[in-house]
Amino acid sequence: MRKKLFVVLAVLLYGLSFLGAEGTAEMPNQMDRTISVTKSPKYVFMFIGDGMSHVQINAAEVFNGNNTKGDIALSPLSFTEFPVLGLQTTYDATSFCPDSASTATSLSSGIKTHSGVLGMGVDKTTKTETIAEKLKRQKDWKIGIISTVTLNHATPAAYYAHVPSRNNYYDIGLQMVDSGFDYFAGGAINMAADKGKTSIYDLLEAKGYTVLDSKDSIESLNSNSGKVYAQNPRLQDSGSMPYSLDMDSTDLTLADFVRKGIDVLDNEKGFFMMCESGKIDWACHANDAAAEISDLLAFDKAVQVAIDFAKKHPRETLIVVTGDHETGGMTIGYASTGYNTAFEILKSQKLSYVAFDTIIKGMKQGNTNPSFDEVMALVTEDFGLVSPNGNASDKALVLTEGEYSRLKEAYAQSMLPSDKRSKDDVTALLYGGYDPLSVTITHILNNKAGIGWTSYSHTGTPVSVYASGVGEQAFSGSYDNTDIYYKLRDIVGVN
Amino acid sequence: MRKKLFVVLAVLLYGLSFLGAEGTAEMPNQMDRTISVTKSPKYVFMFIGDGMSHVQINAAEVFNGNNTKGDIALSPLSFTEFPVLGLQTTYDATSFCPDSASTATSLSSGIKTHSGVLGMGVDKTTKTETIAEKLKRQKDWKIGIISTVTLNHATPAAYYAHVPSRNNYYDIGLQMVDSGFDYFAGGAINMAADKGKTSIYDLLEAKGYTVLDSKDSIESLNSNSGKVYAQNPRLQDSGSMPYSLDMDSTDLTLADFVRKGIDVLDNEKGFFMMCESGKIDWACHANDAAAEISDLLAFDKAVQVAIDFAKKHPRETLIVVTGDHETGGMTIGYASTGYNTAFEILKSQKLSYVAFDTIIKGMKQGNTNPSFDEVMALVTEDFGLVSPNGNASDKALVLTEGEYSRLKEAYAQSMLPSDKRSKDDVTALLYGGYDPLSVTITHILNNKAGIGWTSYSHTGTPVSVYASGVGEQAFSGSYDNTDIYYKLRDIVGVN
Repeated sequence: MRKKLFVVLAVLLYGLSFLGAEGTAEMPNQMDRTISVTKSPKYVFMFIGDGMSHVQINAAEVFNGNNTKGDIALSPLSFTEFPVLGLQTTYDATSFCPDSASTATSLSSGIKTHSGVLGMGVDKTTKTETIAEKLKRQKDWKIGIISTVTLNHATPAAYYAHVPSRNNYYDIGLQMVDSGFDYFAGGAINMAADKGKTSIYDLLEAKGYTVLDSKDSIESLNSNSGKVYAQNPRLQDSGSMPYSLDMDSTDLTLADFVRKGIDVLDNEKGFFMMCESGKIDWACHANDAAAEISDLLAFDKAVQVAIDFAKKHPRETLIVVTGDHETGGMTIGYASTGYNTAFEILKSQKLSYVAFDTIIKGMKQGNTNPSFDEVMALVTEDFGLVSPNGNASDKALVLTEGEYSRLKEAYAQSMLPSDKRSKDDVTALLYGGYDPLSVTITHILNNKAGIGWTSYSHTGTPVSVYASGVGEQAFSGSYDNTDIYYKLRDIVGVN
Repeated sequence: MRKKLFVVLAVLLYGLSFLGAEGTAEMPNQMDRTISVTKSPKYVFMFIGDGMSHVQINAAEVFNGNNTKGDIALSPLSFTEFPVLGLQTTYDATSFCPDSASTATSLSSGIKTHSGVLGMGVDKTTKTETIAEKLKRQKDWKIGIISTVTLNHATPAAYYAHVPSRNNYYDIGLQMVDSGFDYFAGGAINMAADKGKTSIYDLLEAKGYTVLDSKDSIESLNSNSGKVYAQNPRLQDSGSMPYSLDMDSTDLTLADFVRKGIDVLDNEKGFFMMCESGKIDWACHANDAAAEISDLLAFDKAVQVAIDFAKKHPRETLIVVTGDHETGGMTIGYASTGYNTAFEILKSQKLSYVAFDTIIKGMKQGNTNPSFDEVMALVTEDFGLVSPNGNASDKALVLTEGEYSRLKEAYAQSMLPSDKRSKDDVTALLYGGYDPLSVTITHILNNKAGIGWTSYSHTGTPVSVYASGVGEQAFSGSYDNTDIYYKLRDIVGVN
């Protein structure tokens, strides 16, 4: 029975549909949660790190920190130094391990709903009016929605869409077209031309949006540009922006999109900007710490753009930074490394698991696969890991015999067509539906660095909230994710 | 290579010595961290849940909450509803995964030091003066130290002892005798009569302490009782109080010891009480969620005693509740259960892994071991788990064939004398130095409930701080564990 892994991870492919749960006709308790506000901001930034809780944030601080024994220190992020801290619970109507649709709906609309549902109650019929929609309708503010993943993915969609399933991508796209929002930016539109229907991009243009996907044109945007959909020139998995690890000078960063968003949205009445780093979550699903940390640091730079803006508008700006839930059950500390960490070896990872998968795929030609030696050379080049007798700059990068054997087995599985791979529970736990080779590489590298994972899914840990600016005090203390909506509602003065 | 586990847990026996690290002569940065205080409390309660971070707290709230799909809800604890929330970083001079000696020294004395060091700087020579010692010397407050583990264990010792190693139990005991503190209560004194030296208990009595270990005598204590060492009548592993799961009417609870502490310490000048729940940590080391949650709920009841006291002294009391670090890398959400949890099955666990180990030990007679069927009957009785074809009140309690086989293998290992058990890496990862049988039972039960663990050691996640009462606002926001000392120092007005 040694064959059976017992403290490992289950197959739960990302993108799982949550539609099995039964709805009821009840809306959650709408008790009076009015707060008193003496002054309202004119510019509100809502930053959401998808899948980002304390450990993800702390891991970035350790990664950038001082790892010298006897003088250990964290390197704080821009937002971890914000004056106000809160803690939100993230469970939804269905689960203590909720999804991004329900949690982003809680953040945008103040209700608990079923996993998978966007902008609707547990009856999957009653529509909410989101904080962004209220600001547009009641105060004529401009609205910006930014995401590193697709703009009709759960978190961005929760600010403008009302559908019973997050998987109704085309319907969500139609609601984007009708939102009247002013700035969509980052990744692509998923299933934009579903089953031969008119492309959402075309419908956006018909509604007066300028749709751009070149760096020069996006960098030329300004407050006279009108309504805009600005898409990064290069796309990666599922129409998302590339992982920060995989970016080059042809890409716009999340910080770039926030900067241009400010240019586009700037107006006398005010604006609301929701900026999501969606691939923190995706990297955590895949248990790829280096890709996750790199995207979190890029997210931090995007927050810094808002901080710089707030310095120019100190009595008019509010910045809130939070996550929607935790992903992966990430921990700093792992059984085989005990009380030690070696985060410096994560710096040997040059690309995300997605980019590595693409390279491996390119090496497979017809029925001819790359040899293990060829793959191992690539593993050394891109992740720093060397075979048991090899030389590495850091001895923590030398594979043990056991790790080397695991890598060989993962290679063997990876070289099989996906329908020929092992399908048993152990394989499911080992690879979680990801490519066996790359997920094994990141597992080994992460564990050697002192990082553990318990899941390929979301977990139930509460998530911290950081706030700075006009109304910041409302975000202090412990509360539910739905309260964030109520706090924002009262601070900006809509109803 | 399927034999090799890859996302599992390493052997790190509890009680690991941390003395390997080299010290330097530098003391950490003593920058000015003075805060302004308008009013000082007269009664200060410092509650420390050892190994308790967000997930441990949240797990207790889920355990007591509503698990009905469509109407999921947490049941808040007494302290999670405190008005003020903070977040402390816990790394020490040696490690991002620190130990209780260094972290409790940070809390008591405001410095970073090496793992394993108590009340001394990184030079392992320079002594601190703890907040409790300052209050005794400068303000003549009475001081109470309570712990569910031994009273010369790291966390309680950090408030009165100054030694280069937490393992110097007898020396710590001598410093307890000389502390002049007024109330020690909970577990025993570890190695009280080390190598034929005079018992610490005798030395305490010689110094005027009343040493008690009967329930009646402890319950008779009052403000005229003088200095007291009050020990629970029954002791469990390493001289600790029994796990709450294992207590009966002959035991005093942690709440009882806080209640009696208030009676003993009550005086006109004021008192400081540090109350540690030490076995939250021990249960997390062993990956036993039910024992951990049960002790955390008992800790919550102890906090409630202080809350009730504060209601009578609202303008004179401060209560701070925090942890020293996280233990076990606990997550709510586990790979094989994905987005589901089934915390209700944890209620089938009737005793701690320690109590179960004791029963199994009692069943071994000479060379005759209990049969697997006998053990399995006990597993069903004490943990609710039934064999693959058995009947259970909740189908989540039915073992899969894989889990059943794992249990059989753990049984086989457990029945061997410990020096005959497998010593390889896989075994180490599987059992972490614990009894193979009980740790396998709790792993299986926890995983089925939707709880994952990544380590048998401490991890690096930040820890929340809850405060209520006079000076509470100082504990709001993000800061380092050393700041907690400075905040307390300024609030109570010592220097």
